[in-house]
Amino acid sequence: MVAKTRLHELTATEIVRVIQAGEASCEEVVQACLAHIEVREPTVEAWQYLDPDQVLAQARALDRQNGSPGPLHGVPFGVKDIIDTCDMPTSYGSPIYEGHQPVLDAACVALSRKAGGVLMGKTVTTEFANVHPGKTRHPMDPERTPGGSSSGSGAAVGGKMVPLALGTQTTASVIRPASFCGAFGYRPTYGDLRMVGVKEAASSLDTLGLMARSIEDISLYRDVLLDIVPIPLPSVSQAPKVGFCRTPLWSQLEPYTASLLETAAEELAKAGAQVEEVHLPGEFDSIVEMHRAISSFEFRRNFTYEIVNHWGQISPALRQGRIASGQACSYEQYCDAKMWAETRRRQLDDVFASFDVLLTASAAGEAPVGLGSTGNPVFCALWTTMHVPAMTAPVFTGPNGLPVGAQLVGRRYRDRQLLTTAQWISQRLG
Amino acid sequence: MVAKTRLHELTATEIVRVIQAGEASCEEVVQACLAHIEVREPTVEAWQYLDPDQVLAQARALDRQNGSPGPLHGVPFGVKDIIDTCDMPTSYGSPIYEGHQPVLDAACVALSRKAGGVLMGKTVTTEFANVHPGKTRHPMDPERTPGGSSSGSGAAVGGKMVPLALGTQTTASVIRPASFCGAFGYRPTYGDLRMVGVKEAASSLDTLGLMARSIEDISLYRDVLLDIVPIPLPSVSQAPKVGFCRTPLWSQLEPYTASLLETAAEELAKAGAQVEEVHLPGEFDSIVEMHRAISSFEFRRNFTYEIVNHWGQISPALRQGRIASGQACSYEQYCDAKMWAETRRRQLDDVFASFDVLLTASAAGEAPVGLGSTGNPVFCALWTTMHVPAMTAPVFTGPNGLPVGAQLVGRRYRDRQLLTTAQWISQRLG
Repeated sequence: MVAKTRLHELTATEIVRVIQAGEASCEEVVQACLAHIEVREPTVEAWQYLDPDQVLAQARALDRQNGSPGPLHGVPFGVKDIIDTCDMPTSYGSPIYEGHQPVLDAACVALSRKAGGVLMGKTVTTEFANVHPGKTRHPMDPERTPGGSSSGSGAAVGGKMVPLALGTQTTASVIRPASFCGAFGYRPTYGDLRMVGVKEAASSLDTLGLMARSIEDISLYRDVLLDIVPIPLPSVSQAPKVGFCRTPLWSQLEPYTASLLETAAEELAKAGAQVEEVHLPGEFDSIVEMHRAISSFEFRRNFTYEIVNHWGQISPALRQGRIASGQACSYEQYCDAKMWAETRRRQLDDVFASFDVLLTASAAGEAPVGLGSTGNPVFCALWTTMHVPAMTAPVFTGPNGLPVGAQLVGRRYRDRQLLTTAQWISQRLG
Repeated sequence: MVAKTRLHELTATEIVRVIQAGEASCEEVVQACLAHIEVREPTVEAWQYLDPDQVLAQARALDRQNGSPGPLHGVPFGVKDIIDTCDMPTSYGSPIYEGHQPVLDAACVALSRKAGGVLMGKTVTTEFANVHPGKTRHPMDPERTPGGSSSGSGAAVGGKMVPLALGTQTTASVIRPASFCGAFGYRPTYGDLRMVGVKEAASSLDTLGLMARSIEDISLYRDVLLDIVPIPLPSVSQAPKVGFCRTPLWSQLEPYTASLLETAAEELAKAGAQVEEVHLPGEFDSIVEMHRAISSFEFRRNFTYEIVNHWGQISPALRQGRIASGQACSYEQYCDAKMWAETRRRQLDDVFASFDVLLTASAAGEAPVGLGSTGNPVFCALWTTMHVPAMTAPVFTGPNGLPVGAQLVGRRYRDRQLLTTAQWISQRLG
């Protein structure tokens, strides 16, 4: 039996089991999370909106419910405040939308509730999921950024306030905060998980992202969001083929991160994995520029209403960053970048003919000191643009004792294989 | 000088010229459209929402405006009621959203207004841009369907109520109503025109679509929605290479439509075009099934909020159609269909190595009698799933004197070339 005051430390899978076994009620799980949040929130500020009464009412309704429980019955989840909710305001990290109340739940929220999840509240996002930071601080060191743009989701899951949270990623917005905050972060194959009700940044790149404290939970939550009957991951007996991929951006890594990854590659080989270095063809070197063309061209046009009507309420960082880049990018450059990406995706498919997974960096290193920036996003730009599924696993510790993730990348439409392989790898490195 | 009472018959390009030349004011253009709508609307019912005072206020503000006019200065445009508008209710063709007032303009609406367009009102859509029809009737024969799902946009442009209208297409929802109503209809390369603020049906297939009464107008409006400086289409001296493509669905055509297209192919050859038959490889035969898997899997999950909370307000046609199909489609079938589509797109790229454009059917024939169905959509399913740009040109007349369009299909990212070639073709067939 888990102590009632420690229920917030459980994973989603454990919470489901405990509630089904009658060892705790939905309300008790939520009470434990709320109590922990009450202690930690003044320092971390992960939440944009959280009303304990509203959360308790949901839990009590679930405890009263007859009929067969859903696969997330009683599991509290946080939702990045870029995602619409029908009963909680959604402000997209912008003063333009302060107090805005959507009329419906985003598809991902509706699917989570349908599965029995308890919507804990809205987690802090950077402005429109871009770079201008929100108020959130790193759950282990308030002088440091939690990463972004899914800042509150990373801090809430890493800081054990909720076992699950939804984020979104257009560059590095799930993998980076999860890596910084010590959570598992998962970005699915582009297009697999529905984006209805999510404020768009750049639809050619945007995906949902999931954060959790186990791969088992990631798999469960993914099945819920696909609206399919959840099937636990199989245990793998066969060691995977791992491609160790120093991308063209390797020189931007902290030296200790490069060392941690090199040591990990050696450990996996010792554990039986077939590990080889993967060198991407030279065409991949232009990734940062190509990613910028696609994301900026689309962002600039997507926000026409806000730019025309609310220019004064847009941060200088966004005006001079993404919006200015989108203005400078021609339609021809945009199309060239989309065609470039399509050709690179096929080249990457060929790489995956020889490997089950690529091992690479999630972020430059530990979460940097300072709240003015959410860190360097370049280590995810390639994988996001390639539409491949990616996951960060919190398997390393940096020089200041803070988490550093390893990024594992799979082949498009092989997300379940990625999660299965990631399970094998993180058990050997963790 | 155009008579003030006939300004509603002008194209957008002509309206811009007339206003710039001082021959008419924005208000006079709008007055002419409103007067024509007043006469026709009781029969056609193209509009879900239209407030003459609101329209006149916009036009008067444009007439008072100093500074350089935008490229759509004073041009009235209609917007399918699946697209959000900040000052007009948007009900997505569903009683669930009756009276719903969005807080912002969709990107396409904001870009149209920024260019000086006058938002005339919201045009009728089928329920959630699916099959359950709205109230609109064909502008030339009220016993017939205008087509759908962009029913009101087709009827309003074909019926000379507005020179431009926005629609959306997931199967045939722009090309088919434009073909039925005698308008030019254009569906861009997937991903090119922004979908922010458009109620999603299936994001892997959804695009905006434009309707107009000239290709010149389509080109102008496309440039506005790309937020680039409009450049008129060049006149083409060289005759194009035309692939005449009887798709696997040719047997579903009315015999007169097949004859009209065959004659057109001969006429184009006589006019100097290099015309050849194109036979698609056998793998393309499964298009209808593959399109259904992608569109239904996504639709079903996208509408989770409505299905859980408003089941009783969803039409039987939608429940037993798209929603049931989406429930029956497995994740594996969905992924297989997406991978199938990706491979077919590359095969189609190869076809376009030999042709500038494909000539094919827009719809089975004239708009069918009856308001219970919006017609057979299969002739567009392939091109929509292939993400290629497509256009219907009103170049034929059917046995009842009603319009029949020819569909012209281009290569991905070569939309401007498609429009240019379509201009050459429609001048020779029209």
